[in-house]
Amino acid sequence: MDLSLLPDGGMRWLDAAGPKSTIVLSTRIRLARNVRGIPFSQRAKDSDRTAVVERVSEAAASTEHLASAVAFHLDQMDRTERQLLHERHLVSKELAGLERESRPRAGAALLVQDQVGVMVNEEDHLRLHGMWSGFDLEDAYAAVESVDAELGRLVPFAFHPEFGYLTSCPTNAGTGLRASVLIHLPGLVLTKEINKVLQGLSQVGLTFRGLYGEGSEVVGNFFQLSNQTTLGKTEDELIDHLGKIVRQVVEYEEQARDVLLRTAPEEVEDKTWRAYGLLKHARRLSFEETMNLLSGVRLGVGLNLLPGPGVYTLNKLLIYTQPAHLAAMDGRSTGDRELPTVRAAFVRRLLEAEPS
Amino acid sequence: MDLSLLPDGGMRWLDAAGPKSTIVLSTRIRLARNVRGIPFSQRAKDSDRTAVVERVSEAAASTEHLASAVAFHLDQMDRTERQLLHERHLVSKELAGLERESRPRAGAALLVQDQVGVMVNEEDHLRLHGMWSGFDLEDAYAAVESVDAELGRLVPFAFHPEFGYLTSCPTNAGTGLRASVLIHLPGLVLTKEINKVLQGLSQVGLTFRGLYGEGSEVVGNFFQLSNQTTLGKTEDELIDHLGKIVRQVVEYEEQARDVLLRTAPEEVEDKTWRAYGLLKHARRLSFEETMNLLSGVRLGVGLNLLPGPGVYTLNKLLIYTQPAHLAAMDGRSTGDRELPTVRAAFVRRLLEAEPS
Repeated sequence: MDLSLLPDGGMRWLDAAGPKSTIVLSTRIRLARNVRGIPFSQRAKDSDRTAVVERVSEAAASTEHLASAVAFHLDQMDRTERQLLHERHLVSKELAGLERESRPRAGAALLVQDQVGVMVNEEDHLRLHGMWSGFDLEDAYAAVESVDAELGRLVPFAFHPEFGYLTSCPTNAGTGLRASVLIHLPGLVLTKEINKVLQGLSQVGLTFRGLYGEGSEVVGNFFQLSNQTTLGKTEDELIDHLGKIVRQVVEYEEQARDVLLRTAPEEVEDKTWRAYGLLKHARRLSFEETMNLLSGVRLGVGLNLLPGPGVYTLNKLLIYTQPAHLAAMDGRSTGDRELPTVRAAFVRRLLEAEPS
Repeated sequence: MDLSLLPDGGMRWLDAAGPKSTIVLSTRIRLARNVRGIPFSQRAKDSDRTAVVERVSEAAASTEHLASAVAFHLDQMDRTERQLLHERHLVSKELAGLERESRPRAGAALLVQDQVGVMVNEEDHLRLHGMWSGFDLEDAYAAVESVDAELGRLVPFAFHPEFGYLTSCPTNAGTGLRASVLIHLPGLVLTKEINKVLQGLSQVGLTFRGLYGEGSEVVGNFFQLSNQTTLGKTEDELIDHLGKIVRQVVEYEEQARDVLLRTAPEEVEDKTWRAYGLLKHARRLSFEETMNLLSGVRLGVGLNLLPGPGVYTLNKLLIYTQPAHLAAMDGRSTGDRELPTVRAAFVRRLLEAEPS
């Protein structure tokens, strides 16, 4: 169960090499699939879930794209390890059994190879997902689609000729596709245009969430934008549509940043340098404050108001300053009172290695 | 009217060389005197005031301690220059004619030599004052007393055998002495003990004010403590009493700092480093925020939580980040919209020259 078995810890998407990666941190594709003939999640017994893991693992071994996948059996992992996977966006809170008082269900598992993962026994039997650096719907979809095709040849997926793929919750039926981008919109927030933009999204079938998916709050001006419906359109149509809208949102964000630079350049410069100064000197930092400060610094880097740090470092900080990451790094529990101190020290160490 | 004629700009007290100078920034002694036979301030005509200046200047020229004094005729100086003198604590707001819509009165003047100054035609004909680094009542009093003795031999001071020196306002009569210290009490503020201490002061005949004397607000945890009465005790008694109480307040402050270090060391360290980080990186700073941040840094330096900057630099920043100083330095008016930017740049420049 060693995360270090994963090249890049399963997070190549952090590298900021993708298109528009200052504004769009990552692109994620997920496909919901279920195994025909086995009861869906709500009705499944433990033996059904175990059967699913066995079927999927066996099939994966015979594919090209999952043959050397690392397998994580969540029901056999301790809480910090499971939280680590969650903080890396590799498993949902639900699958990892991280809701209060909960435990992972029998058969809860994750397979990961390169940038594609399969959550097993989440809300659906299979949730295939891929996360790509920057704004890159095409590559992310192509990768997940290949795995889907390979697995689909070996495991019979529940499919209805009229409705398409059948899923546990009808909102995911049809394509089973959710495409999303993690996008940083401080310009729209500062110019107070954000609500107009978010309202517009819902009118064109898109929805937004915080960093950790459904129900999570927006902090640090990081939004997840995704399609709301999965039915009645083809995968290509859904992806094209999301792509078009996200390009527009990116443009709005760039315009908002231009407005800020024109109307309040010193205030923006001040804001971003203060955020940098606090990150570089604070001795205690909560994760929420860290996110907000990283947002300020990221804006400054995007506008060339700050000479550094690099976007890769900013991305890494978003992930590695989360509780389980700090706890694991420092041999502590995620509830340790000293985590804010450990976090601040870690932030300083990473920033000091960077130009400023 | 060039301030550069003054060695150290009349501010040797900034050098932080005096006793306890991390906590007690400076000690100030002032004596109120009036010239016998000339109407006191409220009743004085312009010709009376001019007569006072002439008498005092002539006398000063024949003394040892004021013979080479620099003379500032406030009624012939522009506003920024007058404000500069006020920001250096060399003249009162009133004498400098800095209250709204006001102008300096005829004959308003200042003589300065070394660390002793004489305000002429303030509320009293003469206000002799000396400001010393750190907690040093004895040296400050000795210096002002010498000037007083020399001048008193040449100018007949209004004196009543029973009441002592007569003054414009009866609260200053008797000794005409006000002794005060500028003291930094962040420990007592953070531990919320400060109100108890301030209440105690009034019970032992002391009073407190903000940085700029009567009516000025306390910012940055800087307090001016001084004697409330001037009558019925000798100068030595008044000074001894103030000295005893201030020593006690310094002790309370030191105890409060110990409590902070014991009960919340990380919070204090965090607070002080954040203040330092903001001063070093902000691009716009108001004077009030600057004072508050300097207070945080000064506490950190006093507790050895921060390796620098030196107390001398912190003292200089308190003075030189004031509006008239920045304006004069940068060829601007004191109302210039860009002063916060000029201030932040100046703070960074001074801090960058220091260890950190």
